[in-house]
Amino acid sequence: MAYTRDEIAEWFNGLQDRICAEVSKTDGGASFTSEMWERPGGGGGDTRVIQQGNIISKGGVNFSAVHGELPDNIKSALNVQSNAFFATGVSIVMHPDNPFLPIIHMNVRYFEMNDNVWWFGGGIDLTPHYVDDAQTQWFHAQLKAACDAHDMTYHPRFAKWANAYFYIKHRKESRGVSGIFFDRLNQQTEGKPKEELFAFVQQIGDAFAPIYTHLMRINADTPFNDLNKAWQMHRRSRYVEFNLVLDKGTKFGLDTDGRIDSILMSLPPETGWKYNQQWPADGEEMRTQHILQTAYVPEEE
Amino acid sequence: MAYTRDEIAEWFNGLQDRICAEVSKTDGGASFTSEMWERPGGGGGDTRVIQQGNIISKGGVNFSAVHGELPDNIKSALNVQSNAFFATGVSIVMHPDNPFLPIIHMNVRYFEMNDNVWWFGGGIDLTPHYVDDAQTQWFHAQLKAACDAHDMTYHPRFAKWANAYFYIKHRKESRGVSGIFFDRLNQQTEGKPKEELFAFVQQIGDAFAPIYTHLMRINADTPFNDLNKAWQMHRRSRYVEFNLVLDKGTKFGLDTDGRIDSILMSLPPETGWKYNQQWPADGEEMRTQHILQTAYVPEEE
Repeated sequence: MAYTRDEIAEWFNGLQDRICAEVSKTDGGASFTSEMWERPGGGGGDTRVIQQGNIISKGGVNFSAVHGELPDNIKSALNVQSNAFFATGVSIVMHPDNPFLPIIHMNVRYFEMNDNVWWFGGGIDLTPHYVDDAQTQWFHAQLKAACDAHDMTYHPRFAKWANAYFYIKHRKESRGVSGIFFDRLNQQTEGKPKEELFAFVQQIGDAFAPIYTHLMRINADTPFNDLNKAWQMHRRSRYVEFNLVLDKGTKFGLDTDGRIDSILMSLPPETGWKYNQQWPADGEEMRTQHILQTAYVPEEE
Repeated sequence: MAYTRDEIAEWFNGLQDRICAEVSKTDGGASFTSEMWERPGGGGGDTRVIQQGNIISKGGVNFSAVHGELPDNIKSALNVQSNAFFATGVSIVMHPDNPFLPIIHMNVRYFEMNDNVWWFGGGIDLTPHYVDDAQTQWFHAQLKAACDAHDMTYHPRFAKWANAYFYIKHRKESRGVSGIFFDRLNQQTEGKPKEELFAFVQQIGDAFAPIYTHLMRINADTPFNDLNKAWQMHRRSRYVEFNLVLDKGTKFGLDTDGRIDSILMSLPPETGWKYNQQWPADGEEMRTQHILQTAYVPEEE
């Protein structure tokens, strides 16, 4: 049975509920506010934001289901013929207070023009301010297990895609330790019916809360000092650069006149750009920097 | 006598010296560091940065004179045929500590492909965290006087151009109180020889130090409170959005593999994005917000 777009949107909406419940329970200090909004051109969403929690400084879990006419520039960027579109998904970014707890991002989405032209996209990537090797391996193993349950080719393909996508070209470094990224998966590209692809996307969506609440629990109480906090502000500035300069989801939102406060909820509550900031030569900061410059570099095409 | 590109670059380099001397004298607490750099493809520059001064938290006065081959994407964006280019200029952004002292930006530049294809560009715009009407009028009067000394059509044309350029489309507000902006001025567009256009650009460059040191002197000691500082952080976040999402100079620098730390020296030392931040209903913050939403909106084409 093929799902309708409304059934897919409804599942995403439920996913938002479950993730917010898990994250705020683990945080223990703040809950999510909810702002329902409507898009002038059609559809709307529910922007849920947590701020100044015990663990999360600022986090957003956005649900949206919008429809209408694509602007011409997007039409040509997507290489599609028709104007009518429907798009639904859940998009998440969490900025924690503790520099030893990573930033995380997750997005799952469904796009449809008509019964024959549709696709799924999404991804999860982790941005540790300090790379912990064991946690990084654990994170990738969780994603691999979720992918392998559906198709053994997914993890190698989507991990490579993530390395290409989450790379900050102008800095010649990755945004974090990467993860998985996939886009425009459909019957033609995968040779699988919509329900199988949706089942995969559901598994990715459901993987988020267990992964991040685990990382919250084991890192939220790690002691940190002023240097750690300054390094966190620095890493966050790179996150801003990625999202404003490179991120296609942000660009799509800005170009389609999306709800600006929902699109840019991904930006950190505090950050800054110091010039020529110096870090201890043999410290953990430079170790992380080196990993970001070498370990998740896109393959040459 | 037509100036050579080296003579123009030399004048810009001297302008950098004079501006740094004036700003650091007025600041009184910090001087500019200088970093000479070379561009792998040809040319280089001198990035001068002041940080943690008495008045300026972070400011950059960049000189560069670069040459080489244009990447294809830039070639088509500029609508030029040849690959060889030479570009020189001075680019300035100042982020003050005191929220009652505006951020300022100035850029003067010269671009040349060959003896027949060349142009000047530039502009000055002011970004007050709090709009002071008298100071805003004074600022625009300084720019008008500099323009009027060369051509009575310049100020109306270039002020309108600035309103279009310094507008943050996705926020539906201007970056600040605008100023002047001009690009691709040459013999064909203006009916004036290179030396006359250069004389105008020189006058704009020379206008910067008197304008900003005056604003420094009259605003640097104005008392401010935590609300004022929070509002400054908020306004700075919009400045980041403009520079990373919209600014053509930043995009040109990133696309031509420019020196990244010099290009992004324009970003503020501290800022942040709070979600749904609330400001006093009848306060100066909302008054400034209203001005940015209404007073410098681009004209409909």
